[in-house]
Amino acid sequence: MKQTQKILIVGGVAGGATAAARLRRLSETAEIIMFERGEFISFANCGLPYYIGGEITEKSALTLQTPKSFKLRYNIDVRVCHEVIAVNRNTKTVSVKNLQTNEIYTESYDKLILSTGAKPIDSDEFRSDRIFTIRNISDTYRIKDFLDTKKPQNVVIVGGGYIGLEMAENLYRAGLEVVIVQNRDHVLTTFDYDMACDIHRHIESKGIRLFLNHEVQSFTEKDGRLNITLNRNGEIVTDMLIFAIGIQPDSSLAQDAGLRLTSHGAIIVSETLQTSDPDIYAVGDAVSAVDYVTGQPVYIPLAGPANKQGRIAADRICGIDSRYFGTQGSAILRVFDMTAASTGINETVAKKNGLNYEKVFLRSTNHAGYYPGATNMLIKVIFERPTGKLLGAQITGYDGVDKRCDVLATAIRGKMTAYDLARLELCYAPPYSSAKDPVNMAGFVIENILTGKVKIFHWHDVTNLQKADHALLLDVRTPAEFGNEHIDGFINIPVDELRGRLHELDKTKKIYITCQVGVRGYAAARILVQNGFDAYNLSGGYRLWHSIFGTKPQSQM
Amino acid sequence: MKQTQKILIVGGVAGGATAAARLRRLSETAEIIMFERGEFISFANCGLPYYIGGEITEKSALTLQTPKSFKLRYNIDVRVCHEVIAVNRNTKTVSVKNLQTNEIYTESYDKLILSTGAKPIDSDEFRSDRIFTIRNISDTYRIKDFLDTKKPQNVVIVGGGYIGLEMAENLYRAGLEVVIVQNRDHVLTTFDYDMACDIHRHIESKGIRLFLNHEVQSFTEKDGRLNITLNRNGEIVTDMLIFAIGIQPDSSLAQDAGLRLTSHGAIIVSETLQTSDPDIYAVGDAVSAVDYVTGQPVYIPLAGPANKQGRIAADRICGIDSRYFGTQGSAILRVFDMTAASTGINETVAKKNGLNYEKVFLRSTNHAGYYPGATNMLIKVIFERPTGKLLGAQITGYDGVDKRCDVLATAIRGKMTAYDLARLELCYAPPYSSAKDPVNMAGFVIENILTGKVKIFHWHDVTNLQKADHALLLDVRTPAEFGNEHIDGFINIPVDELRGRLHELDKTKKIYITCQVGVRGYAAARILVQNGFDAYNLSGGYRLWHSIFGTKPQSQM
Repeated sequence: MKQTQKILIVGGVAGGATAAARLRRLSETAEIIMFERGEFISFANCGLPYYIGGEITEKSALTLQTPKSFKLRYNIDVRVCHEVIAVNRNTKTVSVKNLQTNEIYTESYDKLILSTGAKPIDSDEFRSDRIFTIRNISDTYRIKDFLDTKKPQNVVIVGGGYIGLEMAENLYRAGLEVVIVQNRDHVLTTFDYDMACDIHRHIESKGIRLFLNHEVQSFTEKDGRLNITLNRNGEIVTDMLIFAIGIQPDSSLAQDAGLRLTSHGAIIVSETLQTSDPDIYAVGDAVSAVDYVTGQPVYIPLAGPANKQGRIAADRICGIDSRYFGTQGSAILRVFDMTAASTGINETVAKKNGLNYEKVFLRSTNHAGYYPGATNMLIKVIFERPTGKLLGAQITGYDGVDKRCDVLATAIRGKMTAYDLARLELCYAPPYSSAKDPVNMAGFVIENILTGKVKIFHWHDVTNLQKADHALLLDVRTPAEFGNEHIDGFINIPVDELRGRLHELDKTKKIYITCQVGVRGYAAARILVQNGFDAYNLSGGYRLWHSIFGTKPQSQM
Repeated sequence: MKQTQKILIVGGVAGGATAAARLRRLSETAEIIMFERGEFISFANCGLPYYIGGEITEKSALTLQTPKSFKLRYNIDVRVCHEVIAVNRNTKTVSVKNLQTNEIYTESYDKLILSTGAKPIDSDEFRSDRIFTIRNISDTYRIKDFLDTKKPQNVVIVGGGYIGLEMAENLYRAGLEVVIVQNRDHVLTTFDYDMACDIHRHIESKGIRLFLNHEVQSFTEKDGRLNITLNRNGEIVTDMLIFAIGIQPDSSLAQDAGLRLTSHGAIIVSETLQTSDPDIYAVGDAVSAVDYVTGQPVYIPLAGPANKQGRIAADRICGIDSRYFGTQGSAILRVFDMTAASTGINETVAKKNGLNYEKVFLRSTNHAGYYPGATNMLIKVIFERPTGKLLGAQITGYDGVDKRCDVLATAIRGKMTAYDLARLELCYAPPYSSAKDPVNMAGFVIENILTGKVKIFHWHDVTNLQKADHALLLDVRTPAEFGNEHIDGFINIPVDELRGRLHELDKTKKIYITCQVGVRGYAAARILVQNGFDAYNLSGGYRLWHSIFGTKPQSQM
């Protein structure tokens, strides 16, 4: 390692800032210059929506470091409002434009780190002072100023992903009437449809209109308002519109330099975070990563991986053999009062990769049910057959969702199996958990499936079973529960009466059992199987079925 | 496996009740009888203090199952108020006493499961209507009745372990003036002294007097009050006293049957949970386990392991090859507004086992610092040198402590190293965490130590260093912080001025650095080391030192 090497960093947020600080801690003698096109470095990207909503009240809270603090602490030459406009690989220089003076100059490098991030996908035909995207602090101020000066009463948010829902929540909090338009059948497409249904209901319970399977086709502006035309169901008049339909790698610099990109435009890097030019590293939202679960290339822009990659790139440049082993997509979102978290792959990805997978749904309380304030969470775990390898998990609920998802994320990173989940020894006291934590329960449930103690069926099997002659549909809840609401075609024998009423069941049929959440159904299945029946238990029970089929979001009709 | 085997279970709580339910789910034909000496089965042991404090208001909430519900659901013959008084191994029978009729009868078994639990250690010489222990529902009612009828104004709690502190909190909540007497230098001895100091201060902030290193020597009763004599500092007059000085295995039945016990009286079982008699299984608080981290025998009575063991014993009896691989002691406690959680071994155990260990302390916010409501937690991680194997963790703080301890517990179970912690991909959004989660930070800090990037020293080294000629003590905080409070003997050069003031430091000396929590000290250490100094950073910084030496609890003087 050359001690006096010169390192240039393009982009001063997340991965770039982390790389700069780590580089300096590893080398006092390196010359380090960090270029940032915007005015700010090291800003709290993920906090921007909360500033708009008013939860974060101080602008200063959004910038974690300033060029001055970075110079003092790390002796980094930070140049804000300086845009790197070209990488000249043959001369190992970059061309830089000072955006305040328009002066263009070149700077040489031994090593170059690209941390150019991602940019929002927007639609060129949608241009207006009332139409916004959100990427950086300037965008944030623009929206905030609009709220403060124009006092909009309502907003249409196009896109039901993480940013879309965060903006929905924060603008709702700021007092606006909110409409969400999403072009898919569910919001948060890192989640599966079945796990999004509770979230749809929760969003609608706040008075927000949710247009699923809808697109914005065009708009006109009239009397200071926007007239939005949807592809169906007509028009919406609104004071403002936010496009949050996704982001894409900001990789034009890399592309122009002839570095290898994926077909989606993400910079291709190795485990060492080197691009196709070994003197150029790339990190963060601009790069493609390996999916930690499938081993396939994937584009998952997240702050955690960006920061880790920045650290690793710095290590490599200073001769340390650090490597990046892939991204598993651990993500979390607060949706009003709810929390939605996921890690690993979802069913769509499992199917695309042709994996032999199964899934379970369980509903558990966040802490001991007898201790006040217990709330339910819905957990979906996807695992490989027959190994029990954990592939992914999705959780929605309230308190304690983040904890269970992080435990599952750790288990996935540690290449643990569902059997290991059953053995985890987690911290228990009544205010925090149960003696059998929800994650343990997931392990028990999967173990019972893998070892053949119970066979399951799913919510999407019900419709066919209702028409199938070979199927006997059995609801083992109490008569009161059954009488209140049940799925068409099911007959009722409470689990606690089942042993005495076996003669009522036709042994030539397959018995498909449901209860409320799956626990009693499992006990019933065990009774039936041991008495010679072929029985199946509905994973997630009636409660899950109802959340999917019970009541559609109004605007989804 | 014989399908018609007869299985007796002694003890109807936690491990016993779990075993019974699992047995039935595995075998419809087995004859299963569960004996319980008390009136209740499957009760919420861990919830009892919260009933006394009034957070749990319904008696019915404390019993999770009744003999009737267990019969209906699981076809288990539950006999409450029936005490098994002898195990006759040669005839494979037990002698049972019906405590309501005093009738004694025998019952035969093919397999026997002992789930006899633990009993509070109490002192025979302390007998009074105003002196209590707490183990079961009857004890709980007795205390609750005393509160309701005698209206005590104050209480002395002897013992600062989990039960002692839970009782302290709940009786404080019920309006009593509380005194805690603990015979050690700190409460919660599963924690190390350094991690307990913040808890001491928090307890005292509630107006509770904490007598550390004190014992209750004797008492007299006068005018309906107790006069407690301590071994020093005189007397306390109180309306009631609770002994919570620990629990011991309730293993007399096993002992009388000639089963092998540890020197502390815990029943010795194999990985298969069989006792020295292969037809007799034992689970829960009555048994000795293997420490998952050290591999040594250990007595760690906890609800989580008890439940898991019950399930495994049932599996074994039904021919399934389940095994119990050890207890790691994951535990958590709410102490008023704080949370204290730990997993794996502490320093005392690491020392006793002669392990080559090191420890780090770090203070991190529970979620993004710029998002409102962030609170600090103090994390201690103990790891093995040079492998980085995780040995144990202790965390104190507020929100999010439980999550980090469960992640660390999962990592320990998965035999992960500190390097793995740095790579964990946990869920991040501002309300839940930071892009570098506190657990990631612990991994970074340990990795830097293991790879020689920084050398550390500890709070307990400071006193010697203050007298050492070879040591130069350097505080790199700002002059304002330094001026406010600092450790004697330290000089002040802020980290951000350090590069320009290196000439002020004597290169012949070892430089011992502190900052507030350890982060700036690390940056300073890297500057100094790269400039040829031999530098060490104080783990946990001034903040930790102050929490230990700053202000002793009043009653500790």
